[in-house]
Amino acid sequence: MTDKNLLIVSGTHGNEINPIWAVEKFKKSINFNNTDNDSNLKFILGNPEACEKGLRYIDVDLNRSFNVRRTTFNKYFNEIRRADFLLKNFGVNGKYPCNIAIDLHTTTSCMGTSIVMYGRRQKDFCLAAVLQNKFGLPIYLHEKDDNQTGFLVESWPSGLVIEIGPVAQNHYDPEIVERFLVILNFLRDFFGDFKISKIKLPLEVTTFVHQYSIDYPRDEGSQINALIHPQRMNKDWCLIKPGAPLFQNMCGDTYVYEGIDSTYPVFIGEAAYKEKNIAMSFTKKEIIKCSKKWIESFLK
Amino acid sequence: MTDKNLLIVSGTHGNEINPIWAVEKFKKSINFNNTDNDSNLKFILGNPEACEKGLRYIDVDLNRSFNVRRTTFNKYFNEIRRADFLLKNFGVNGKYPCNIAIDLHTTTSCMGTSIVMYGRRQKDFCLAAVLQNKFGLPIYLHEKDDNQTGFLVESWPSGLVIEIGPVAQNHYDPEIVERFLVILNFLRDFFGDFKISKIKLPLEVTTFVHQYSIDYPRDEGSQINALIHPQRMNKDWCLIKPGAPLFQNMCGDTYVYEGIDSTYPVFIGEAAYKEKNIAMSFTKKEIIKCSKKWIESFLK
Repeated sequence: MTDKNLLIVSGTHGNEINPIWAVEKFKKSINFNNTDNDSNLKFILGNPEACEKGLRYIDVDLNRSFNVRRTTFNKYFNEIRRADFLLKNFGVNGKYPCNIAIDLHTTTSCMGTSIVMYGRRQKDFCLAAVLQNKFGLPIYLHEKDDNQTGFLVESWPSGLVIEIGPVAQNHYDPEIVERFLVILNFLRDFFGDFKISKIKLPLEVTTFVHQYSIDYPRDEGSQINALIHPQRMNKDWCLIKPGAPLFQNMCGDTYVYEGIDSTYPVFIGEAAYKEKNIAMSFTKKEIIKCSKKWIESFLK
Repeated sequence: MTDKNLLIVSGTHGNEINPIWAVEKFKKSINFNNTDNDSNLKFILGNPEACEKGLRYIDVDLNRSFNVRRTTFNKYFNEIRRADFLLKNFGVNGKYPCNIAIDLHTTTSCMGTSIVMYGRRQKDFCLAAVLQNKFGLPIYLHEKDDNQTGFLVESWPSGLVIEIGPVAQNHYDPEIVERFLVILNFLRDFFGDFKISKIKLPLEVTTFVHQYSIDYPRDEGSQINALIHPQRMNKDWCLIKPGAPLFQNMCGDTYVYEGIDSTYPVFIGEAAYKEKNIAMSFTKKEIIKCSKKWIESFLK
């Protein structure tokens, strides 16, 4: 385990600029030398072309471009090529092999500092549990969503997304930067002189398991015709019951949550998800007992 | 004066989506009919191509494209052509002549609801004074800035920008929408059955007069290398004195305000202004006595 290499990715979305700044500030604070091949920390800018232009992506979303079938149609896309580059260089069998990927993102939604897990890998549970135990961060467990695949961290043996918001795209916010630095400093200390004794798992972790996403109400021309309801704005992670207001149209009419079970919405109104037809995602709270197997898996 | 036509422009910047929504909601609330040529209200989407793509602009900033010399280089730019279209249709000598333009904008800066005036036209002072008297809105008086010209409202005999923030680009926020609706409803009432008795000027107006803008500190490669200082974030309109912190670099070093006079910064950290090399603009408070001439000018 002591030979584990950690890949820290920022700028996977080119208009999420605070993690990029945080990483540079962090590297400076630890006198990190980019040519230092002995360090167990590797840093990479996910999508430099998109960063240069201040766009989320050039051709397609890089964070949906991993493990996607290459076709004659998509193989020259900037992000498909970039995904291949990242794996070739920093994948577990790459030139500079990394076992764990931490992908740093921001959101315009009021998510606070949160962890996104993809699926139920034991190694990921171990690291997420350590982070939740230390900082109390909520965990969004993303799974079983056929419309959303090809995430970066899934292409490494272990990996998590750190998602912080709200912050506007292309807008620097020093408070958001500091939140990333807290996580980066912790990860450095945790992996720096790694000992098994450092893994302190709580009895259980609280996760918010993805159920499904819903789109905005739209008119015949596919234009959005109702916004997030004022009572729902900035209420990510807050339980709602059937009948709770979700959207409000121009006439003031309310669209309510029609699910059967109470749910915890996340990514409410995220600006970048309009094009994905996602107004918010619904989750179900699931408390999961921590297992020694998570540690064993993590140490392998 | 009763024959004055008011042009309401939204979406001059295609990624400022809340004013667009507010205008549609407003039109619905008053049963506005787009084919109603008798109304003294006209509505137009400033930059439909940019709105469609969720971008600020396609080729150049539309709100810097008015009164700009047309050259063989720029004459086919989307926004230069759009500026011509808007004037041809809604200019004071256009097909549907309008005397007053109200251009609705959002900012990622913490500006609240504010008025931007361009220069010291008496008609503009009159309307700005009425709005300040009614709602207490701060007035940013933009003048004498050779680097920033070609604003939309300057091409009409009278016109103001309503600027509301903070809100992320492409992110709907019902609270921001409601703020626009307050202004739109007031304008409709004010101009609807206009009488001179409706013009209630206070004794004086408080303006914040543009002095100059400053860029972020940048490195040799022109990359930003210090962010807005945490003490300056979200402190638009708040007085600072010489020596006040403005920026902080990655090492934690502080860059201070080196001006001689105290100043009121505005548009602090606006995301769209990075490309214009503007980190914030400095203003000087100026209290201006209201004049009967403003009303006379307004009534002409």
